[in-house]
Amino acid sequence: MSKKKKRIVVIGGSAAGPKAAAKARRIDDDADVIILQKDADLSMASCGYPYYVGGYFDDRNMLLSTSTGVTRDPQFYLNAKAIDARTNTEVTSIDRKNHTVTFRNLLTDETGTMEYDKLIIATGSIPQLPPVPGTDLEGITTLQSMKDADFLRGIREEQTIKKAVVVGGGLIGIETCEALQLAGIEITVIELLPQLLTFLDWELAKLVESHVKSKSANVITGNGIAGFLGENGTLTGVKLQNGTELPCELAVVAIGVRPNVRLAKEAGITIGERGGIAVNEYMQTSDPDIYAVGDCVEVLNLITGKNVHAPYGDLANLQGRVAGENAASDKNNVKFPGTIQTGICKVFDYSAGATGLSESMARKLGYEDIITVINASPDKPNFMDGLLLVTKLVADSKSGRILGAQCIGPGNVSRQIAQWAMAIQGKLTVEDIVNSDLPYAPPFSLAIDHFIATAHIMQNKMKGRMKSITAMEVRNIPKSGNDTLLLDVRGPDEYEEMRLGIGETLIPLGALRKRLHELPEDKDKEIITFCKISLRGYEAAIVLEANGWNNVKVMEGGIMAWPYAREK
Amino acid sequence: MSKKKKRIVVIGGSAAGPKAAAKARRIDDDADVIILQKDADLSMASCGYPYYVGGYFDDRNMLLSTSTGVTRDPQFYLNAKAIDARTNTEVTSIDRKNHTVTFRNLLTDETGTMEYDKLIIATGSIPQLPPVPGTDLEGITTLQSMKDADFLRGIREEQTIKKAVVVGGGLIGIETCEALQLAGIEITVIELLPQLLTFLDWELAKLVESHVKSKSANVITGNGIAGFLGENGTLTGVKLQNGTELPCELAVVAIGVRPNVRLAKEAGITIGERGGIAVNEYMQTSDPDIYAVGDCVEVLNLITGKNVHAPYGDLANLQGRVAGENAASDKNNVKFPGTIQTGICKVFDYSAGATGLSESMARKLGYEDIITVINASPDKPNFMDGLLLVTKLVADSKSGRILGAQCIGPGNVSRQIAQWAMAIQGKLTVEDIVNSDLPYAPPFSLAIDHFIATAHIMQNKMKGRMKSITAMEVRNIPKSGNDTLLLDVRGPDEYEEMRLGIGETLIPLGALRKRLHELPEDKDKEIITFCKISLRGYEAAIVLEANGWNNVKVMEGGIMAWPYAREK
Repeated sequence: MSKKKKRIVVIGGSAAGPKAAAKARRIDDDADVIILQKDADLSMASCGYPYYVGGYFDDRNMLLSTSTGVTRDPQFYLNAKAIDARTNTEVTSIDRKNHTVTFRNLLTDETGTMEYDKLIIATGSIPQLPPVPGTDLEGITTLQSMKDADFLRGIREEQTIKKAVVVGGGLIGIETCEALQLAGIEITVIELLPQLLTFLDWELAKLVESHVKSKSANVITGNGIAGFLGENGTLTGVKLQNGTELPCELAVVAIGVRPNVRLAKEAGITIGERGGIAVNEYMQTSDPDIYAVGDCVEVLNLITGKNVHAPYGDLANLQGRVAGENAASDKNNVKFPGTIQTGICKVFDYSAGATGLSESMARKLGYEDIITVINASPDKPNFMDGLLLVTKLVADSKSGRILGAQCIGPGNVSRQIAQWAMAIQGKLTVEDIVNSDLPYAPPFSLAIDHFIATAHIMQNKMKGRMKSITAMEVRNIPKSGNDTLLLDVRGPDEYEEMRLGIGETLIPLGALRKRLHELPEDKDKEIITFCKISLRGYEAAIVLEANGWNNVKVMEGGIMAWPYAREK
Repeated sequence: MSKKKKRIVVIGGSAAGPKAAAKARRIDDDADVIILQKDADLSMASCGYPYYVGGYFDDRNMLLSTSTGVTRDPQFYLNAKAIDARTNTEVTSIDRKNHTVTFRNLLTDETGTMEYDKLIIATGSIPQLPPVPGTDLEGITTLQSMKDADFLRGIREEQTIKKAVVVGGGLIGIETCEALQLAGIEITVIELLPQLLTFLDWELAKLVESHVKSKSANVITGNGIAGFLGENGTLTGVKLQNGTELPCELAVVAIGVRPNVRLAKEAGITIGERGGIAVNEYMQTSDPDIYAVGDCVEVLNLITGKNVHAPYGDLANLQGRVAGENAASDKNNVKFPGTIQTGICKVFDYSAGATGLSESMARKLGYEDIITVINASPDKPNFMDGLLLVTKLVADSKSGRILGAQCIGPGNVSRQIAQWAMAIQGKLTVEDIVNSDLPYAPPFSLAIDHFIATAHIMQNKMKGRMKSITAMEVRNIPKSGNDTLLLDVRGPDEYEEMRLGIGETLIPLGALRKRLHELPEDKDKEIITFCKISLRGYEAAIVLEANGWNNVKVMEGGIMAWPYAREK
């Protein structure tokens, strides 16, 4: 009854690879499971690097150990999982015809060839560098590897660096910015695009940018890097595309990553149109005996039906689990359906998250029937120290189906985005969400959770009850024309404390019904109402409409979602 | 073109009533909208009472004001919403034939009659009192009204009460226990049933009970109250059904509430089988001109298809919104589909939440095809100070559809329960959830979120890969028989620090493959594996099965979900 042992070889030992190996082992206790890992470490919690650099914890080994403190080294893999994990071992080629890989030990330079029955490629991604002069200067790094994390942590501890530049204002760039700021370094973030965090739409990204700046980190958007400046091989500054020169002793480049597909490509495995290894829903490549997982693949976006490169640590683990099971089984058993590109990051005292499509992504993809709304409110009652959340919801204007949501602020963004992600996964519509039954108690949420209230506002908008206008549209109204009445309906105290200063008139909601005579006689005149978060703004609009004004709009999200500077 | 103004009368001004009135006003700016409120206050954040008593905040007015600090009094309702809200005004009868209500001013004793076109009943619920002697003694209260909250807050401030008893270990009882403990009072919670918080299954409730006890609050379960003891009309103690007498100067009764349906019943409106006012999905009673909302109604449980009394503040608001719109419209426009009975409460440093059905509820309702699993893990990586979560998932064993989930612990229970609630609302199955795309970054969750990992374990169990056993079943194995090997597969350090002490043998997972010869020769012998959370326990079981032992079970949730006392 004895049959030949199956040999499953995994290339890559960071996240997806070890997960695939562990799952394969659990499915087939008899198989040979081998991990070939180029780096010195195994199963690194790479998403934790910024928090190590930022000093949230000091024990480097926590990035490399199980929850009970056991280091995930080759000995651990051998003893606990009977997996042969070889570090410092780089795979140099794949021979699909002969079912072998060649490898080289980076410490001893020894080379070898190994047969496989099933191969799982988890070669990850490569950080991109800008095509400018000076990238080889000392003092330029990425934050992609354990080595990078060690280097930046060392800088934190030496306290010799005064000024640093982060090139790229995406998720890793922002996390790095926070980490270095916490290390006491003066930071400037440089972003070529007009905004940080492109998974957010512009107006939410600007609110995050204001928060970053409030933490004494400089942000320059709409201006890319033209070159790194140096003396004697060492970085002394960066030059921007507009000519500005910024002196700095450290530059962290975080302008994105591309799938590391060299091995797969050289072996003739199909590469997808997004540059990642093409896989089917079983995480199987164009070669049925070869699977690929993690940052080196491209996967289906479940909303658009198009492939995307989605280098997220959680997806890498889920994909590893699927490929591990399929590779260890007689046939493909389990599927990874795809991604809705859910993400979140901590930005000092704010969080910023998104799931599904932003408005700008949706428009770029050619969606036309889209409707959006912005909601601003605390996450909990004021008496429980509620903190602000600002959400932008994107839905299909015909079916009401949720296409995406973004949320930012000091409040509990994580729960909000998790709820939207599950709503998208359940293919729910705005109408499905308006009566959601969520966990409510004052320490956790408002009686009507921010998520549900966002759906309520969208419902009012879709039913034509609320005509609204965005802050950007309000900003573009000429101040001098006097064709529009901007009506702030908050109380006088609130107005004294904080105001936009864009020519608005103050009439508190509570006085509005008695002061209608102060409003324009011309009932066709455009009136834009708002308050702190635009709930009272909405009620004011209803009062005005009921009294004959027929061109009334509510400014979405009110003052809390205003992405520009305020007068006060 | 002028038509007669519609008059919408709302009976009750706590939560559902004001919400209904406000929505009615927004739908029909022309209607007369009147709230008749028996209490002196309006729109009280009653779920916040325990936190006011407990001293989370000191300004009583925060319970009665908008997020910008405006008190929701009659003047506010008149000015901001054009709603005529009359406090201290008790409705004494409903005359359906004549479309009128009679009312009495509790301050002036004046009475009156008022016509309505549409009536919305929001009379709330009445706290139940135990049918025992002494309930009229001074020193016995509930925590249901603003008056109760004022009374208990006064006790906090006077600091004269030393010992109190909370009768009832449900949600309000536990919140009250925490509030009074924070007020420096020695507390005993008395619960007739064998456990606290009956929305949880027994084993999770026991973990919460241990936590309550760790905060120096006494808990007595399985023992009801036989009577209140007093001297000169004042409470001096309580007597339990087993004869125990506990001296105390204060007793807070929290044994549940029943719908306040007297007015509706007297008017001949249909009362449902759960004792609440019967309503259809439009929140309309048996009289088409009368709606009812909030704690006085019974609503559909969306999972069971049966009616339930679900007195939750969030549902009251959602129902109010629906009834307000329907009452103000020409026809019923919007629906409240029902509840999945999602709830959460803070219990000192723990949270406890549930959505859908618990196992015991499901069994009571006659569900047979159910499968459950327990998962224990941190909510975040250890290096980000992850905190424990223990989840019990209940699913349909044939379809895999999620029937319910409970979660407790110091970790982020709120996000977990919100995710399960949305999964139930989306009618998702275990298979749908295993590849969920949720917001992951180390400050917010594990790479594989606890929610997804719970689905993974359930999937392994449903596929027959993991045979498991509950802690209760393990507890019932006779120690002396020696027919079962209890195998703790953690490390020696962990064993020294904490262990069950139920006759277990320690063989660390990392050493297991080399020490198989120490295991029973009889391959049919029952072996139960476990670790801290039973992930290593699961891996150990796979190793044993692969080596021929065929009666291996994993103890679900491991030591962290063990609901009994440990040796260490």
